[in-house]
Amino acid sequence: MEKTMEKIVALAKARGFVYPGSDIYGGLANTWDYGNLGVELKNNVKKAWWQKFIQENPYNVGVDCAILMNPQTWIASGHLGGFSDPLMDCKECHERFRADKLIEDYNEANKIIIEGSVDAWSQEEMKQYVDEHNIVCPSCGKHNFTEIRQFNLMFKTFQGVTEDAKNTVYLRPETAQGIFVNFKNVQRTSRKKIPFGIGQIGKSFRNEITPGNFTFRTREFEQMELEFFCEPGTDMEWFQYWRQFCIDWLKTLGIKDDEMRARDHSPEELCFYSKGTTDIEFLFPFGWGELWGIADRTDYDLTQHQNVSKQDMSYFDDEKKEKYVPYVIEPSLGADRVVLAFLCAAYDEEELEGGDMRTVLHFHPTLAPVKIGILPLSKKLNEGAEQIYAKLSKQYNCEFDDRGNIGKRYRRQDEIGTPFCVTYDFESETDGAVTVRDRDSMEQERVKIEDLEAYFAQKLEY
Amino acid sequence: MEKTMEKIVALAKARGFVYPGSDIYGGLANTWDYGNLGVELKNNVKKAWWQKFIQENPYNVGVDCAILMNPQTWIASGHLGGFSDPLMDCKECHERFRADKLIEDYNEANKIIIEGSVDAWSQEEMKQYVDEHNIVCPSCGKHNFTEIRQFNLMFKTFQGVTEDAKNTVYLRPETAQGIFVNFKNVQRTSRKKIPFGIGQIGKSFRNEITPGNFTFRTREFEQMELEFFCEPGTDMEWFQYWRQFCIDWLKTLGIKDDEMRARDHSPEELCFYSKGTTDIEFLFPFGWGELWGIADRTDYDLTQHQNVSKQDMSYFDDEKKEKYVPYVIEPSLGADRVVLAFLCAAYDEEELEGGDMRTVLHFHPTLAPVKIGILPLSKKLNEGAEQIYAKLSKQYNCEFDDRGNIGKRYRRQDEIGTPFCVTYDFESETDGAVTVRDRDSMEQERVKIEDLEAYFAQKLEY
Repeated sequence: MEKTMEKIVALAKARGFVYPGSDIYGGLANTWDYGNLGVELKNNVKKAWWQKFIQENPYNVGVDCAILMNPQTWIASGHLGGFSDPLMDCKECHERFRADKLIEDYNEANKIIIEGSVDAWSQEEMKQYVDEHNIVCPSCGKHNFTEIRQFNLMFKTFQGVTEDAKNTVYLRPETAQGIFVNFKNVQRTSRKKIPFGIGQIGKSFRNEITPGNFTFRTREFEQMELEFFCEPGTDMEWFQYWRQFCIDWLKTLGIKDDEMRARDHSPEELCFYSKGTTDIEFLFPFGWGELWGIADRTDYDLTQHQNVSKQDMSYFDDEKKEKYVPYVIEPSLGADRVVLAFLCAAYDEEELEGGDMRTVLHFHPTLAPVKIGILPLSKKLNEGAEQIYAKLSKQYNCEFDDRGNIGKRYRRQDEIGTPFCVTYDFESETDGAVTVRDRDSMEQERVKIEDLEAYFAQKLEY
Repeated sequence: MEKTMEKIVALAKARGFVYPGSDIYGGLANTWDYGNLGVELKNNVKKAWWQKFIQENPYNVGVDCAILMNPQTWIASGHLGGFSDPLMDCKECHERFRADKLIEDYNEANKIIIEGSVDAWSQEEMKQYVDEHNIVCPSCGKHNFTEIRQFNLMFKTFQGVTEDAKNTVYLRPETAQGIFVNFKNVQRTSRKKIPFGIGQIGKSFRNEITPGNFTFRTREFEQMELEFFCEPGTDMEWFQYWRQFCIDWLKTLGIKDDEMRARDHSPEELCFYSKGTTDIEFLFPFGWGELWGIADRTDYDLTQHQNVSKQDMSYFDDEKKEKYVPYVIEPSLGADRVVLAFLCAAYDEEELEGGDMRTVLHFHPTLAPVKIGILPLSKKLNEGAEQIYAKLSKQYNCEFDDRGNIGKRYRRQDEIGTPFCVTYDFESETDGAVTVRDRDSMEQERVKIEDLEAYFAQKLEY
């Protein structure tokens, strides 16, 4: 079975996982809307993250901060100064390119190996390299580029009536800064002692030049970030702790070892303030792509905010009678990306006995958008089946389906990844039991209706 | 007990419900961040809405659409043309005002009763009224205003590299339009038949001139909207159905009859396309404020999108063999507003036996940010108490607190609205039981540790 993006995108659209954004108007760049199943899948992913990183974790609490922040935030974080791409235009055909990508593509095509990374070069160095190697426009084949200019990736808008610098605000490019500016607030109100973490789930926006690969890289995206504050000196230990914690979280939700890798950044690749960074990558049909960045950010962020805001961002350890600016370990996960990873990992086509094929999404039950399909064998049996629906849907997202033959209905539930189907048949009226079918093994067992809640509580525990 | 906004805002900040946004930089207009308890409260409100409006409701499914939409959407919806406020500046002191509010305030102060609503007047009528009545600037007392201009309330930004009209996009001012443009997509993928509804929870943005009243009116806010599609002619019946459903939802979560009212719009107050609109209002300490707008929007929205997109937005009823553009009932709820309403409704100060006072938040257990406080009577007992925390926190957001005397710890849990406290004492080690204290009655009962999960499953059922 060949697992391709084409098949996954087609299934996503046909079954209500993901539609193109603003579909009836021909879309809008690379925006996407989650449909009736996609919203449940994404919510389940967010819930599973929150449960393991916040709710069950005795160290961590959550926050939910505004997308619009005081612009001083982006001065302190470095986003106003440095968060930009080097762009150049072809003067012949007016296409626009990222200079660093142009050079990397050229080097790859010509098997030129350079030391370090192109994106660390200055604008002048890039322009000079393009000219010296006579790199041509990939679109028209001519070599006639403009100078390079830096393009800031933050979306800009205006708050208030006039569109001037005074009223300029930015859509946050990451959720992390909402956590940093609230470090003291949360420490005070939660009464947590170091080490402790603050997590947040929310939308961020980056004006990417080349979004693409379905929902993998979009300008509007959702993040699940944890900032874990610890004592300097204990940071590498916590870095390893969270690195493993993240890998385990993916594994328990069904990502297999050969679909994922942890790529540790080399010293040259590290940001100047980072002591260590690991990317957890997933093998998408289009290649390896980053899901999670786990970084030891030292005291960089809190110190920057302390310098710009003139507010004290240090922590007083009342056992050691010591004051310090905590170090931060940041595991930062893209919600849309990991949803796409779970979708790709779940996708399968299987040949059944007799030669029939089925498409099936092998979602972990915790992530499956519909937990239980409730299928009366005949419309005459709807009343009894509806009672089961009413009872189980108080706990789980269920789907009631009384249309078509039972085999087709099973196929349909397989295709949307429903782990269990409850079939209410004519015997159910007399024996008070139903057939429960398992998506993966396709085995069936008879369960008393009165035992269904306990049965599923055990099957769907997370 | 006087319930004031000052007290509620102070408690919210002190206990981690809501902080001013970008606090260390002196804030940003009227933005707010939800703290470690606020995020749990808000998430619980959203979960309770989703559970009753989507998960348990056999008619409805959900979606999660992008905030950035194709600008054609806002032409069709009328937001680009008509979603604006009439503004005028005082030429003397340069303060800026909404002309309609200026007139309304003047009329109220002078006990002038007019027919209909000022915001239905033309710009010229407003200017003429201001001049004829010699209405003065509330700031400097002079009468010297500019002409009125319309100020569009949508936040504008630029997608892509250049800041020109071609790249202008808007932050959605409501979640509803994401649902309308996906009506056909969702109908197809969910295979729902009319009547059915599509719900969405998400952020919206309106560049309000005068945000205020804490989190009641903010420029960035979250909505919980349902668009319920039905056959023309059945719409008033469904309007009444959802009107009552919304009232019941608030009641079951603890809002009392005397704190809420349903205000039906008079025929003059209705939008031209609406057959009926009801505002469900809550009595905040600052007065009555709208939580929920429930409107019969007829086929206005789908027809508008059909006209602008040239896509067929009709539905074919295969039982009646009839084709029609469905009517829409829209119950639209502000998430931040209803969170604030629950916070205000829950707030209480009580005199206890012996004359002590306690501040208590009487949240419905479903909404309480912390469900169970787990309190070892002595630090020597932490191990046993931690085992209980580990077990219960798999199901519920719990707080472990081993600091201070037990009376003070109860007071603290009361103040954050925790419905139950589990006290693990020296006897627990031998009798395998704990004391469970009820927040509201302050009564205590002894419960076996092994029965705790079943005990709370029953107490916290929703």
